[in-house]
Amino acid sequence: MSSVASTPDPPYVAVVFTSTRTDKGREAYDEAATRMIALAHEQPGFLGIESARGADGLGITVSYWQDDEAAGAFGRVMEHREVQRSGRDEWYATFALRVCRVERVRTFEAD
Amino acid sequence: MSSVASTPDPPYVAVVFTSTRTDKGREAYDEAATRMIALAHEQPGFLGIESARGADGLGITVSYWQDDEAAGAFGRVMEHREVQRSGRDEWYATFALRVCRVERVRTFEAD
Repeated sequence: MSSVASTPDPPYVAVVFTSTRTDKGREAYDEAATRMIALAHEQPGFLGIESARGADGLGITVSYWQDDEAAGAFGRVMEHREVQRSGRDEWYATFALRVCRVERVRTFEAD
Repeated sequence: MSSVASTPDPPYVAVVFTSTRTDKGREAYDEAATRMIALAHEQPGFLGIESARGADGLGITVSYWQDDEAAGAFGRVMEHREVQRSGRDEWYATFALRVCRVERVRTFEAD
């Protein structure tokens, strides 16, 4: 994902997922990450997603949802749950998942 | 910053800043970005910061603050305002700044 997500006016929900990786399963992880982004797009109440992993290994993915229910439902999709298990068992050294309510937004586009 | 921020129990404020860069001023930008992270650490009410820019050019920085007032005050620090001006005039093609209230957190650390 190489662009800033275009989202409706707040309020809506942002799920900020920050992680560091182990050195295990790079190919399987990359494949699952791409697939999860596609899966998110198919869910009811999905508004957008932004994802970046820096050269130092820290990854941040922010997904945007219409409401808490939509955000929570994606976490319980069976295919997503299976990937979450691999994440805890193999791929992630650490992570934090923060569920947030977006209150104000400012956007900018250069001329 | 290569680690997941360690933050107190919610509620607190997250400022999610997502951007794409122009091709201008790479060195000056990198220097300013590093300096702004250091400056954030010095502010009252600062709780943590996470930052990543992916190979495709999308950058995500999430800063965490005790409350709205602390988050807003950092935006008005003079040195930060000067950097914001350079950001709009030169460095950013697009950005979105989303002010959020963190409601729930789940963390993980591998054994």
